[in-house]
Amino acid sequence: MKKDFIIPYLKTLSLDPENQESPIHFLDRWKTPKDYFYLRNHFAYPQIIPQPFYLTIQGNVKKPVKITMNDLHHLPSKTIMLPLECAGNNRAKFKPKVYGEQWEEGAVSQAKWKGVPLRELLNRAGLLDGSKEAVFVGMDFGERKDLEETFYYGRSLPIEKALHENTIVAYEYNGKPIPYKHGFPFRLIVPQWYAMASVKWLQNIFIIKHEFNGPFQTKDYVYYPYKDSDKDKRPVTTINVNSTIQQPMNNSIIEEGPQMIKGIAWCGTGTIKEVEISFDYGISWRKASLKWKESEKYAWVKWQFEWQAVKGEHTILVRAHDTEGHVQPLRPFWNRKGYGYNAVQKANIKVE
Amino acid sequence: MKKDFIIPYLKTLSLDPENQESPIHFLDRWKTPKDYFYLRNHFAYPQIIPQPFYLTIQGNVKKPVKITMNDLHHLPSKTIMLPLECAGNNRAKFKPKVYGEQWEEGAVSQAKWKGVPLRELLNRAGLLDGSKEAVFVGMDFGERKDLEETFYYGRSLPIEKALHENTIVAYEYNGKPIPYKHGFPFRLIVPQWYAMASVKWLQNIFIIKHEFNGPFQTKDYVYYPYKDSDKDKRPVTTINVNSTIQQPMNNSIIEEGPQMIKGIAWCGTGTIKEVEISFDYGISWRKASLKWKESEKYAWVKWQFEWQAVKGEHTILVRAHDTEGHVQPLRPFWNRKGYGYNAVQKANIKVE
Repeated sequence: MKKDFIIPYLKTLSLDPENQESPIHFLDRWKTPKDYFYLRNHFAYPQIIPQPFYLTIQGNVKKPVKITMNDLHHLPSKTIMLPLECAGNNRAKFKPKVYGEQWEEGAVSQAKWKGVPLRELLNRAGLLDGSKEAVFVGMDFGERKDLEETFYYGRSLPIEKALHENTIVAYEYNGKPIPYKHGFPFRLIVPQWYAMASVKWLQNIFIIKHEFNGPFQTKDYVYYPYKDSDKDKRPVTTINVNSTIQQPMNNSIIEEGPQMIKGIAWCGTGTIKEVEISFDYGISWRKASLKWKESEKYAWVKWQFEWQAVKGEHTILVRAHDTEGHVQPLRPFWNRKGYGYNAVQKANIKVE
Repeated sequence: MKKDFIIPYLKTLSLDPENQESPIHFLDRWKTPKDYFYLRNHFAYPQIIPQPFYLTIQGNVKKPVKITMNDLHHLPSKTIMLPLECAGNNRAKFKPKVYGEQWEEGAVSQAKWKGVPLRELLNRAGLLDGSKEAVFVGMDFGERKDLEETFYYGRSLPIEKALHENTIVAYEYNGKPIPYKHGFPFRLIVPQWYAMASVKWLQNIFIIKHEFNGPFQTKDYVYYPYKDSDKDKRPVTTINVNSTIQQPMNNSIIEEGPQMIKGIAWCGTGTIKEVEISFDYGISWRKASLKWKESEKYAWVKWQFEWQAVKGEHTILVRAHDTEGHVQPLRPFWNRKGYGYNAVQKANIKVE
C-alpha cells in the first residue's frame, strides 16, 4: 500500500493573491526548499512571455541597456545565503490587532541566491550626476482597491544601497533557476532589508533624480505609529533583530526530562551575537548555544538550549542580540499597518 | 514554463504524530477532497499488514465473528455525507489558553462515507444480555507520555448508539477506498458525535457489560470545567451546534460595495434551522440564506449573506440554530482540555 509521506505544508492565508506562510517550526535546514518557502504576493502571478528574457536599465544613465540571461551568466557572480523576511511577519501578534494578512512566524525563509552585483550592471549603463534612487519594477501588476488604479509592483532603493556590493540581481535559487513563484527569471536580492525590497520578476530598473513615490513605497511599507494619523511615519527598510522558537510549539504539552528548545535568529544590522532564554518573564536570562553558517554573514543562526523540563506550566521567552547593540524588546513597536514585529517570542508549555 | 497551480494546503500543527488542519476558508465543495481533509492522529500511522483485512467482533456475544472486506461488500450498505469535527476544533480561541494542539477553524471536514450499518454486523455476532457498550479499537498505538504505558487507540459507544441505524463501518470515502491516513481499510463512522468516536483503522470490536475506561475515554475527551479540579467532569459526545465564517477572513481588508459573507454550519442534534449575522455585537441579527445538501440530513449547510460593505471597520458575528433549540453562545464554555468550542464566530473587517 502506498503510504503518503509525512510532510509539513505551507499555510494558506489567501489564494488571490496567493499568500502562504512557511511551516518554519518543522524545518531544520539552512536552505529552505522551494515548496516550504513562504509566498507573499501583491497581485496575481504574472505571465512571463518574452523570450529571451531581459532586464532594462534606463532613466538618468549614459546609455540605457538591456541585459539578458546570457549576459548575466557571463558576468562575475556572487552567491549569498540569507533569510528573506516579509515586513508583516508576526503581524497576527500585534495588540490591538491590525488589518492585513495575519502572518504568524512563518513569513521568513532562507535560501542561497546566485546573481550579479547590481552595481556591475549599473556601471554598464553609467550613472549620471544627481542619481538619487534606483526603482525596480516587477512583471506583476494589478488594481489596488484603495486607489482604484492599476500599478506594477515597484520599489526603490537609495542609490548607495543599490550600489552596495551585495545587492544582486539573482538568477539562481539554491543552485537552480529561480522558481516561477519566487521571481523567475530575475529577482533583486537586497540583503538586510525586509523582503518587499527584493523585487520578484524584475523587468525594469529606472534611475531617478528624486524620491520614488509609488504606493508600495509611500502608502504600504511605512511605519505609522498612530491609528488615526500619519504623524511620524517613516519607511520600512532594514530588518529588526528577531528570533523564532521552532520547538516546542506554543501551548504544547511535552514530557519531563531533557528537552531541546531550538530555533533561529537573524538581523538586519551586524550579525547575531547572542541568543538568550528566560524562564522567569525576563528577570534572568541564560545563553543559548549558537550555530553559524560558515562564511555566510547574512544567514540566520541556529540556536538551541537543553532544558531539564520539570512538571508544571512554564513560559519560555527568547531574545536575540546583534553585534550593533540591538536587542529584541519585550513589547513590539505597534504600528497601524503591522510591520517590523520583533518582540521577544514566548512559548507557554505544559510539562506532564 | 510550468506554472504551479494555486491551491491551499493543510496547515501543520505537528508532524509526530501528524496533525494538520483543513484550509476550510478556501473550500467550497460539499465533499472535502482527501488532500484537504484535516488529519488528527494520536500516534504514528499504523502498519497495515494482514491480507486479507478483517475486523473482529468478540466479547459478550453468542459467536465471535471475523468480517472481511468481501463480507462488507456483500451486505446492504448506506452512504452518508457528514462533517467530522475534532472535539478540539477552535481550541486556539479559548481564553485563558488551554494546552494541546492549537486548532483554529479547520479541524472539521466533510465527506461521503459508504459502509455497512454496525448493527448488521453486531446481529451476526449476536449480542448477549447485559451488553452495555461496544469498544472500538484501531490499529494505531503508542506510548502515552502522561501514563508511561502503551495503548491502542480505543473508544466505546453506548450500545444504543452502536445499534443506531446510521452508525456504520465504512469502507469508502467519497466513492473510493478510504485513504490510508483516514483509516483504511475500515473506519467506524458515528454521525453527530465528535470525531474521536469515528475510530480509524478499525480492527477489533469488543462488546462489554460495563463502562469502558480506556484513557481516550476517561482522561481525554472529557470536559473538565475547572483548571485545578476534576469536579463536574463529563464525557465529550455529541457535536455542539457550530458555524464558521469562511470568507471574508478575520482581520482582512476588503473593498466597499456588495460583498458575500459565507460559510458553513453544522450540529450534533437535529438539523440546522437558521444562521444569523450581526453587525452590532449581537444586539440585532439578520438571517443568512441557507443551502442544504439534498437528502443528506447530517451534512453541513452552506450559508451566505450579501452585504453592502461601507467604508470603515466592522465586526461580523455569526451564529447557527439547530431544530432542537440549541444556538451558539456568545462566549464559549471553557474547559481545561479545550473541547467543544462553539462560541459565535467573529470577523473583524476593514472596508477600504
